[in-house]
Amino acid sequence: MTPLAIGIHGGCGTLAPELLSDKEWAETRAHLGDSLRAAWKILSAGGSALDAVEAAVVVMEDSPHFNAGYGAALTESSEHEHDASIMNGETLAAGAVCATRRIRNPIRAARAVMEKSDSVLLAGSAADDFAARMGLERVENSYFTTERRVKALASLKARKARGTIALASEAEKHGTVGAVALDGRGNLAAATSTGGFNNKPVGRVGDSPIIGAGTYARNGVCAVSGTGQGEIFIRRVAAYDVAARMHYARQTLDEATAAVIETLGSHKIGAGMAAVDAGGRVVVPFNTLGMARGWIGADGIVHVATHRDVHRLSAA
Amino acid sequence: MTPLAIGIHGGCGTLAPELLSDKEWAETRAHLGDSLRAAWKILSAGGSALDAVEAAVVVMEDSPHFNAGYGAALTESSEHEHDASIMNGETLAAGAVCATRRIRNPIRAARAVMEKSDSVLLAGSAADDFAARMGLERVENSYFTTERRVKALASLKARKARGTIALASEAEKHGTVGAVALDGRGNLAAATSTGGFNNKPVGRVGDSPIIGAGTYARNGVCAVSGTGQGEIFIRRVAAYDVAARMHYARQTLDEATAAVIETLGSHKIGAGMAAVDAGGRVVVPFNTLGMARGWIGADGIVHVATHRDVHRLSAA
Repeated sequence: MTPLAIGIHGGCGTLAPELLSDKEWAETRAHLGDSLRAAWKILSAGGSALDAVEAAVVVMEDSPHFNAGYGAALTESSEHEHDASIMNGETLAAGAVCATRRIRNPIRAARAVMEKSDSVLLAGSAADDFAARMGLERVENSYFTTERRVKALASLKARKARGTIALASEAEKHGTVGAVALDGRGNLAAATSTGGFNNKPVGRVGDSPIIGAGTYARNGVCAVSGTGQGEIFIRRVAAYDVAARMHYARQTLDEATAAVIETLGSHKIGAGMAAVDAGGRVVVPFNTLGMARGWIGADGIVHVATHRDVHRLSAA
Repeated sequence: MTPLAIGIHGGCGTLAPELLSDKEWAETRAHLGDSLRAAWKILSAGGSALDAVEAAVVVMEDSPHFNAGYGAALTESSEHEHDASIMNGETLAAGAVCATRRIRNPIRAARAVMEKSDSVLLAGSAADDFAARMGLERVENSYFTTERRVKALASLKARKARGTIALASEAEKHGTVGAVALDGRGNLAAATSTGGFNNKPVGRVGDSPIIGAGTYARNGVCAVSGTGQGEIFIRRVAAYDVAARMHYARQTLDEATAAVIETLGSHKIGAGMAAVDAGGRVVVPFNTLGMARGWIGADGIVHVATHRDVHRLSAA
């Protein structure tokens, strides 16, 4: 039996500490812990990495503190469009959805595409309809809306109108959730889900549903989920680049992820990742002020963080 | 000045020779020649690889003999949905559209996304609307329909109803067009466009609009455009895998493309590529009965082919 491991991120666009109350930060950390424990429960019971990453992402999709599912960013039209993908490192099977508007948990739709269709990627209302046919929960688009996102969108639009849009921090714009895991059979998996960014153009698709850009997993190599400006992740084929550096150039997980984050940073963008290798090592590198993140490794301790300080919670 | 090169493919799902008339094959070859000459005219006048691959793809989109633009495959709903992408190897800039229904030349829309938006990928009607705002020609969806595709769809549906769908050849199902080029300043570019496959699910997105899967270009390494079952190209991150093998594992263009085609073939799918390296070497490997293809290299001779025999046309 290989060591078990789960790593998650809740987006590298973390707000400065002073912009949310202590209570909100504590709740954010608590939900990161819930996400990790949901995955660990599956892994420690002999379950699959695939089930674990899906479960971890569902918890973050259902939390208002992350930009995915409930609490996701709003488009320029004040609505929500979600992107998500999942990949099985054992078979290289993958599933993804983009620009969905009605599926409560986009990551479940991505998994359904992988397992119950001949496609890898379904777009827009066709993805919504497919998910509904597969029996997944459908909600009104307004279900995803939180007061925080409405205010953030209004603030962005106001600054855009005043020509001071550049002052908007990345934190107000971007965000993604993702999970990577290694299970007891040595299988790797990765999953990513996002609402994109506040004020995004309708129909814009980022890296989260793009296998190789925002999500990648291959047994014996690594599993990766990215967060940051999706356009650069796509152009840099970021998630697969980590795997290619490890597989072809014999870099370690630490070397490969650091190199890719540095490459992404050369485009002057914030970027982060959660990644795990075939030996169960988890890394959560980022080049921003903070990144909501967490992991459980061989010691079974739940680690969560939003900025530099890492909090050790009770054992899973 | 570096050597100039253009390579194109018109899909690896070429029909068996006896299924079309000699006149139709001659016209297919003529249109491949037109595509190559359109690109060569640009390259030999000192134009960019980016302009060359766009021009080459536009000719094939406008021809009824290829599955892109006019003459594209029909979805299960007897309509057309197009995917396309383009990448500039000098800057790694990229643009793409998926599931478009109204843009006459999807590759032009992909380029507009790259150059006139902050996005890399736009989906569905938002992509159509964006292209229209950029002044690109809009057509009715029925513009794309040809009698040949209507018959092919009817035949596929009939066989599906009889349970003999497995007898449908790949040729009736798949197809894509693409181009790769090297210009006189040493810049590489790649472009890919497709209607998907006959009877495809509405909303299904293949590899053609996915940077790294169906299209990739990076100066100093290679430019790649793929054709074949898109789902496997996505799962294998096929186009970027060629570049990664060259960049990280020091494989030649021939070695890297052969290895990737073999990997894709291990999934029992038909696959092909057009690829060019930084020295101007063009390869057009495929594992099927035939692949519409062509190239012009240092000698300026126009080569076109649909099956094993290669036709040398007059010098460009």
